[in-house]
Amino acid sequence: MLKRVFLKIAYDGTNYCGWQIQENGITVEQIINERLTELLGEKIAVIGASRTDSGVHALGNVAVFDTETRIPAEKISFALNQRLPADIRIQESREVAADFHPRHCNSRKTYEYKILNRRFAVPTERLYSHFVYMPLDVEKMKKGAEYIVGEHDFKSFCSSRSQVENTVRTIYKLEIEKEGDMIHMIICGNGFLYNMVRIIAGTLIKVGLNIYPPEHVQEIIEARDRSVAGPKAAACGLTLVGIAYD
Amino acid sequence: MLKRVFLKIAYDGTNYCGWQIQENGITVEQIINERLTELLGEKIAVIGASRTDSGVHALGNVAVFDTETRIPAEKISFALNQRLPADIRIQESREVAADFHPRHCNSRKTYEYKILNRRFAVPTERLYSHFVYMPLDVEKMKKGAEYIVGEHDFKSFCSSRSQVENTVRTIYKLEIEKEGDMIHMIICGNGFLYNMVRIIAGTLIKVGLNIYPPEHVQEIIEARDRSVAGPKAAACGLTLVGIAYD
Repeated sequence: MLKRVFLKIAYDGTNYCGWQIQENGITVEQIINERLTELLGEKIAVIGASRTDSGVHALGNVAVFDTETRIPAEKISFALNQRLPADIRIQESREVAADFHPRHCNSRKTYEYKILNRRFAVPTERLYSHFVYMPLDVEKMKKGAEYIVGEHDFKSFCSSRSQVENTVRTIYKLEIEKEGDMIHMIICGNGFLYNMVRIIAGTLIKVGLNIYPPEHVQEIIEARDRSVAGPKAAACGLTLVGIAYD
Repeated sequence: MLKRVFLKIAYDGTNYCGWQIQENGITVEQIINERLTELLGEKIAVIGASRTDSGVHALGNVAVFDTETRIPAEKISFALNQRLPADIRIQESREVAADFHPRHCNSRKTYEYKILNRRFAVPTERLYSHFVYMPLDVEKMKKGAEYIVGEHDFKSFCSSRSQVENTVRTIYKLEIEKEGDMIHMIICGNGFLYNMVRIIAGTLIKVGLNIYPPEHVQEIIEARDRSVAGPKAAACGLTLVGIAYD
């Protein structure tokens, strides 16, 4: 009997060309499809929730697939991890309703963006944070972040390569905390446009550098124009923390 | 005029065969010697403080070298970082007395050993922590750790490949803290035997797994026999945090 299996997936994006299958390099989706196909003896093509970019990490991306296997859904995590490379690890597997679709259901996604702000870079943090040499004013970044929270048209924070029509999204939370030399930006919303978190991070870095006053974030939102926001910050600083479904 | 320059060095040990120059692979010492020689136009051979093993990381290893350069000692960090690969970064450079020797002076070394203790491994932590699937009793590990603190003959915690004669060392501090799923073991002492921190970590993991009662750590110390202590824990969990000189 066919069942739909939900996977919570963590990966180190350093060595992958992102989530989605493409011709130019190895992707996380491709590796998971290959290993599931081997494990279950059926041709598997997962449906992923979030198409993370090249170099972006995940603690809890989500994918589903349908299978006739008699292996209990909860055991698939263990069996699949045995076959996966060390930079991809299933965190949970369970059966879900046959009509559950990870992109069509209402959800809240949480991302973390890490900025290492100190005089010299730290080698062991280089793959998981964006390094900024100049001192950042974290209080100003927090003030700038307040303008992002709420329902807004985020067209200014969407890569111009995107063809999405509706650029309105709701940000429930945007917290900035400094812990030693590391600035953690935690952002939670009902959806994110292409490169949106990285452009928000790049814009708030400009606020922290005193290039933009915090109030300028409001003007950037209102402009609905990608060219007025800051640059997108490095992919390696970004981690998809998790996706919560209603 | 000859001056002696002190370097504080951070590195990600993942891709190196440790600190010390050897024939079987690339080492951190070798890379630093090569890049310094290029930068200064003199043949440089640094004297390192700690010969970290293959795969072990550092936030603050120390090395010194003598040079006739007219580049101010404080500027060498910036110039050298331009030439170093991203997994090695000088954190500080300054002039020291001509007779300062990083291994012959009294010092306190601090290491951190990280243990990730959860059901499934986390890919982005895999290169910087030792993963333990079975639940660890951190309170018991803390009790076991108390026996390590003080001046003891640590022969049981010294790899049998070592030929050092005096195996007495003083441990000033051994703290174990849990933060989420990560157990941090911070150890500070006047010196460490070969593999000593990793064998202490491996022994305390056995305590945390309830294989050894905490009091057994005392018996292990008294035995002065490597074979009665726990196994050495993985190199990737270990970071040389820093070295303080009197």
